[in-house]
Amino acid sequence: MNVNIRGRSKHFRTVTFDDKTNSVRLIEQRLLPHEFKIVSTKDFRETANAIRDMVVRGAGAIGATAAFGLLQGTQAFRGKDLKKFSAHVETIYQTLKTARPTAIDPVNAMNHVRAEMRLGAGVEEQQLLAFAAAHDFANENVRHCESIGRHGAKLIRSGMKILTHCNAGWLAFVDIGTATAPIYAAQAAGKKFHVFCDETRPRSQGATLTAWELAQQKISHQIIADNAAGHLMQRGEIDLVIVGSDRTLGRSGEMTNKIGTYTKAVLAARHQIPFYVAIPLSTIDWKLKRGSDIPIEERSQDEVLGAWGCDSRGRREYIRVANPASGARNPGFDVTPPELITGIITPAGIFKPKELWQRRRELGFAG
Amino acid sequence: MNVNIRGRSKHFRTVTFDDKTNSVRLIEQRLLPHEFKIVSTKDFRETANAIRDMVVRGAGAIGATAAFGLLQGTQAFRGKDLKKFSAHVETIYQTLKTARPTAIDPVNAMNHVRAEMRLGAGVEEQQLLAFAAAHDFANENVRHCESIGRHGAKLIRSGMKILTHCNAGWLAFVDIGTATAPIYAAQAAGKKFHVFCDETRPRSQGATLTAWELAQQKISHQIIADNAAGHLMQRGEIDLVIVGSDRTLGRSGEMTNKIGTYTKAVLAARHQIPFYVAIPLSTIDWKLKRGSDIPIEERSQDEVLGAWGCDSRGRREYIRVANPASGARNPGFDVTPPELITGIITPAGIFKPKELWQRRRELGFAG
Repeated sequence: MNVNIRGRSKHFRTVTFDDKTNSVRLIEQRLLPHEFKIVSTKDFRETANAIRDMVVRGAGAIGATAAFGLLQGTQAFRGKDLKKFSAHVETIYQTLKTARPTAIDPVNAMNHVRAEMRLGAGVEEQQLLAFAAAHDFANENVRHCESIGRHGAKLIRSGMKILTHCNAGWLAFVDIGTATAPIYAAQAAGKKFHVFCDETRPRSQGATLTAWELAQQKISHQIIADNAAGHLMQRGEIDLVIVGSDRTLGRSGEMTNKIGTYTKAVLAARHQIPFYVAIPLSTIDWKLKRGSDIPIEERSQDEVLGAWGCDSRGRREYIRVANPASGARNPGFDVTPPELITGIITPAGIFKPKELWQRRRELGFAG
Repeated sequence: MNVNIRGRSKHFRTVTFDDKTNSVRLIEQRLLPHEFKIVSTKDFRETANAIRDMVVRGAGAIGATAAFGLLQGTQAFRGKDLKKFSAHVETIYQTLKTARPTAIDPVNAMNHVRAEMRLGAGVEEQQLLAFAAAHDFANENVRHCESIGRHGAKLIRSGMKILTHCNAGWLAFVDIGTATAPIYAAQAAGKKFHVFCDETRPRSQGATLTAWELAQQKISHQIIADNAAGHLMQRGEIDLVIVGSDRTLGRSGEMTNKIGTYTKAVLAARHQIPFYVAIPLSTIDWKLKRGSDIPIEERSQDEVLGAWGCDSRGRREYIRVANPASGARNPGFDVTPPELITGIITPAGIFKPKELWQRRRELGFAG
């Protein structure tokens, strides 16, 4: 998407590959929204560090970063010994995989690249195939988000007020995003509307990343405290809710997303406001039967007990907000049941949660 | 309630009057939870400043502070000229009233003191009556909170997990508080339970004031992001919700409280968790007919866009969290309809919201 730099709008993807220098180029997301900077990793180990240290975050974005990291590692190999090359590829694969051990997207992305690569006869051919496969993976990620946008934009009419939670924007993918895709597509179609960004405590991704994205795209928006959405719905100020999802169960239609999503779904249902989830096919879990079986990550107390931001001198700082002697509970995600979900926007169309299972073949279920 | 100072527990009220020095003594609430300090105001103008600058906040606490400020002003008067004295009282009254122009409690408190005072024949007698009336007002505030505690404690059983929102604790009253009163009374009765404090963005009164109070009283508690309560309810981890209220409509049973309260009521209803509101009689509004007529204060954007806390060197600091180019909506309160309220805990007993009107005589409706 576009970024405004000194008054000019310039297009960027979250992650790209620079063939000339054999480097992965990433938006340094830890500096946002206070500073926009592109960083380059010089080898696959640096790329793994960038994933580990959350220079890049978001399911689609770390998937593409791992694919490009694998490519980067294979391109650096000199020689024609296929055995040595294969051992080298295994090292790269493991290094990138262990950078975020619980994430599934880097593994899926690298499996795709490695499978394509192995169709090649020698080292050079495999290197060429890796190049094509990694780029295809990233481009497919973008096309899928474009499809989500095409389907989802139909839900948006001019004059609407849309609520979103957390960041399922282009920064979390290679470009465009999922929950934001219908918003960007509707804007491109000339529609005028307003977006409320839930702050999304404790990590504030709505106030930092989503608000930054929307500001770059010149989309009318305001940040609200997570506490405020209920009141706005009560006063008729929200017409549509669109969120992303980290994992949607293909069997039950239950949906996991950032903590607080369930609350917004409950409120939307009470006020008969349509509640949509936008997802790439890769986040559908076809195995798990029940949402209550999804392990909910308990994150660091410090996230709840304080906040990150910029002080009056522009220095990034963590401050302790809460009573120093108190502790916190910090579940990272929650589960929204299918009866609260109006529809799931996928690259293949919009479905009711319960339709996912009956459409599993066209949605890519290989089981 | 008690405050731990260097390992020893000592009793304090939020506001007291020191007859020897003719000063009002206040807990400096702007320093909490990072520092506990008592400040003294040397005259009624300083007391008005303390109300204006929010050294003291909370309906009951500013009411008692204004009552003591009026007393303080009358005690400082020298002479026997009743006309001059009455003009002086009028100056004090207006100065304290305009310190927080929209608050009703200081006005009610001072009207009570002034009416009692005027029963006296001369200056000296009026000064004595002011002394008694101001102390009676503060003591009645405490007794009413004790009654709320006595009624509400019956709702709490050992092993329960209780959710509260914002701060309707003893810091907001002279002592004990309203939403916290049942909690403190249940503790005094030997019950063991756990309290979840909603952080309560954007001003974080739950993470700062309520958590500090509970820590002083050694009550088991944890702070949660406002986003987390829905998830905890879903997993059966909350048994009871108790909140305060800034204004409850005697005619409709609708209840106004800090932004986010309505959301918790909606979630509690969905999960069939009892949702109680604890209020002093002074916050019942017998005139207004509909909650939608309650004006909702739109507060400063900076509250949503950043946070106050202590940096690593212990300095109090405001940091900007949100995207610098984005704005915010910041409604300060919301309205909860009666069908979501299990009961209203008053000093006179626990009532269904719709019962308030039929019981209006015993609840002090003079209309």
